[in-house]
Amino acid sequence: MKAWILERAARTPDAIALASGDGTLRYAELAARAQALAATLRDAGIVPGDRVAAVLGNNPALVELFHATALTGAILVPLSPRLSPPDLARHLRDASPKGLTTGSGWKLTGPPDTVSGRAVDEPRPARDGGPFELEAAAAIVYTSGTSGEPKGVVLSYRNLLASAVGAAFHLGALPTDRWLACLPLGHIGGLAILARSVLAGSAVVLHERFDPIAVSRAIDRDGITIASFVPAMLAQVLEVRGTTQPPATLRAVLLGGAPAPAPLLERAAKARWPLLPTYGLTEACSQVATLPVGAPLRTDGGGLRPLPGVELRIADDDERVRQPGTTGEIHVRGATVTPGYWQRPEASRQRLAGGWLRTGDLGVLDADGALRVVGRADDCIITGGENVHPAEVETVLLAHPDVADVGVAGLADPVYGERVAAWVVRHPGSPVDAATLERFARTQLTHYKVPRSWQFVPALPRNAGGKLQRRKLGDETPAT
Amino acid sequence: MKAWILERAARTPDAIALASGDGTLRYAELAARAQALAATLRDAGIVPGDRVAAVLGNNPALVELFHATALTGAILVPLSPRLSPPDLARHLRDASPKGLTTGSGWKLTGPPDTVSGRAVDEPRPARDGGPFELEAAAAIVYTSGTSGEPKGVVLSYRNLLASAVGAAFHLGALPTDRWLACLPLGHIGGLAILARSVLAGSAVVLHERFDPIAVSRAIDRDGITIASFVPAMLAQVLEVRGTTQPPATLRAVLLGGAPAPAPLLERAAKARWPLLPTYGLTEACSQVATLPVGAPLRTDGGGLRPLPGVELRIADDDERVRQPGTTGEIHVRGATVTPGYWQRPEASRQRLAGGWLRTGDLGVLDADGALRVVGRADDCIITGGENVHPAEVETVLLAHPDVADVGVAGLADPVYGERVAAWVVRHPGSPVDAATLERFARTQLTHYKVPRSWQFVPALPRNAGGKLQRRKLGDETPAT
Repeated sequence: MKAWILERAARTPDAIALASGDGTLRYAELAARAQALAATLRDAGIVPGDRVAAVLGNNPALVELFHATALTGAILVPLSPRLSPPDLARHLRDASPKGLTTGSGWKLTGPPDTVSGRAVDEPRPARDGGPFELEAAAAIVYTSGTSGEPKGVVLSYRNLLASAVGAAFHLGALPTDRWLACLPLGHIGGLAILARSVLAGSAVVLHERFDPIAVSRAIDRDGITIASFVPAMLAQVLEVRGTTQPPATLRAVLLGGAPAPAPLLERAAKARWPLLPTYGLTEACSQVATLPVGAPLRTDGGGLRPLPGVELRIADDDERVRQPGTTGEIHVRGATVTPGYWQRPEASRQRLAGGWLRTGDLGVLDADGALRVVGRADDCIITGGENVHPAEVETVLLAHPDVADVGVAGLADPVYGERVAAWVVRHPGSPVDAATLERFARTQLTHYKVPRSWQFVPALPRNAGGKLQRRKLGDETPAT
Repeated sequence: MKAWILERAARTPDAIALASGDGTLRYAELAARAQALAATLRDAGIVPGDRVAAVLGNNPALVELFHATALTGAILVPLSPRLSPPDLARHLRDASPKGLTTGSGWKLTGPPDTVSGRAVDEPRPARDGGPFELEAAAAIVYTSGTSGEPKGVVLSYRNLLASAVGAAFHLGALPTDRWLACLPLGHIGGLAILARSVLAGSAVVLHERFDPIAVSRAIDRDGITIASFVPAMLAQVLEVRGTTQPPATLRAVLLGGAPAPAPLLERAAKARWPLLPTYGLTEACSQVATLPVGAPLRTDGGGLRPLPGVELRIADDDERVRQPGTTGEIHVRGATVTPGYWQRPEASRQRLAGGWLRTGDLGVLDADGALRVVGRADDCIITGGENVHPAEVETVLLAHPDVADVGVAGLADPVYGERVAAWVVRHPGSPVDAATLERFARTQLTHYKVPRSWQFVPALPRNAGGKLQRRKLGDETPAT
């Protein structure tokens, strides 16, 4: 079996593979570059199974490297250039790559916690093929988890293929598609776009960083047919465009990474954005469940359908399957699920034993199998013996017209163990106060779910993937 | 795992599944009908692995049955209503179905060569699920081979899925697609449309019989995005429409089943038909190699690219792999390849040993892996010790402006063993004679390939799939 880039370049050599600030690359050109880079890697002593780390951001070089590692059998480890030096060192220690690039040539790494060695800069003539097996590891993607040690999720070509097939049969896929990648390629939401595109023969439109003006312009002028956003990105793009409708050629906007506030969804729906709210996670190679094309948009986060080939179940803490309509942990099964965490057999066993991925996310399945995501199991607040899921409270508060963003977490409480606390970003100029929001929340929520503490903040801590970092909410003590 | 129709109906219940002379069915409706029919089958004693034969033609009931058999684990055996009674009996004897429908209710069959038993007409309430395994046999499709006993090709759900995935990544697939099925559903070219559509969530536009006027009208008014034709169908549709261009919504026309005459391709290209010449066979679940979308149309039958996931090689009679540029037998490997022939272990071994399907077709691979089909190995004429492939001679003659259709075969010859003979259909009114055609052929072909016998006929023997039946050419002796 040939690596995807070679199959694709043979099939449609002249189709656009990549459009970026550096210009466009056709598939034949991308394949040639990937082959040259693969030769460089081989000459540097990279052998199948070696990790190759890239601290590159959304650079066309990372797209070349994605395919070059497939040609050599090496495992790509994309790391964000926004990682702090100690964090970067921790990730490199964990992945122990043999090669590393930061954009200025290649380095062979020495002992795993240092970054040094001879540079291997000269591209070499392309060589043929190389080993390519679907079960081989394509990449190690570090989870955008909100705390703890970095955990590397191993993703195989089989995972990427199954995800791309599921997406094709859920959203559609055309060789004429142009998929906007402004999500970081170091996250699965960005990286998966590369696999889908080479398989479908379509183009990746790569933005080096997220800039709402550039994204808005690309949507109007660049023939984008699909885009992947986190809600915060969509909010900023709408800020720029107001009610201007996107062109009809934009047929799908995947919205994932975090729950989307209802007013944001409503604003986007008014401007006829073809939104497809999505639940996914790195361990399942991005998409797990997505609103089907043509289904009415729902603002409660519900109605998501698993990708074809993906199975869902909701389980309680003892792994008993829960009935439709009841909340529990979302479990996922299928060919998109990771074979495990990099060198963490215990974590792999805990999350993957028995063939089901325990996501740590909470959700409900309808009687007819549609998923609504409720929140993170880990974020659960226990107040006076009652369980409160922050995402449920956030969803209610986000429906208030004065609330631009909100995070909810638990604070230690001498009486109740924990108490529910809210960090609120108001819309500019809004004078809304805690008492008003609390009255509003009381109309929507059971009493123990209503926040007892309120703090107004200019912004919430979110990671590069747009995910709310609830544990960092506590870094400032809210007013009581 | 759930049967595809249930997954699909849950995902997009309101999407159109089927449009036919009987009106339209949405996925929820098609699923309900399939479930009711599955209950009927179960009540009639049909169990997983049983064959269920349908002598229905392109009837919506066959689409329901395709899904109902998936729900029960039964194996669909679609048979053409155009089979002669003795041929039908032979097919039924071979498949030994437990159930049979001819359009007027259900019958349980008695001894395999008779058709009788109690009718099971009452639809029952739908039941849930049923076993569904990708490796299970979905259908037995009898090959449209031009001679010999009927051979049933077993096709699994895995074959159908791999074929649909390959098509999606080659042609594209959208939930808004509408695929025109005017090929017989009893042939793989028709049946594969059902699998692709339920997987992609798109619509099948089913024509009960091929009528060029109805097809032309459907293309203009019915939002057809993809169509599957054999060359003879395309010729008739062009006859009806002349140079009228199809609407831009028609994005692909798969043209397979037989080599396409160059003048036909040229005429269609002038009217901007988005033609994708295709090589396929039942044993590989329809498409094997297709001209890529966007590639320039070639009239020599070359430039075909294997579907993603499909591997090709060219071998000589001793199964040694031949070099690029040399003719040999086309071998196919991949998840689209049949597990074997129904109850013919010897034929299965001969054609499938070692993991490669020996197609019996002759072809050439370019240096860069593109396929050109040359003809049938079985049809090879040996004249004076030289091998002549009829399709090569036909391709040359079809390029003559006065030739509408042509078949070439060998006739016994006392001197040369065989001699090359041609049966020619002239364009209406054309006065072209054998001497003229022979002179023309001499300009294009090595001398021993030039036909020595010429016969002008009103039409050629083709089977329902459009395939030339070369052995039947000999039923009338041509003039020498």
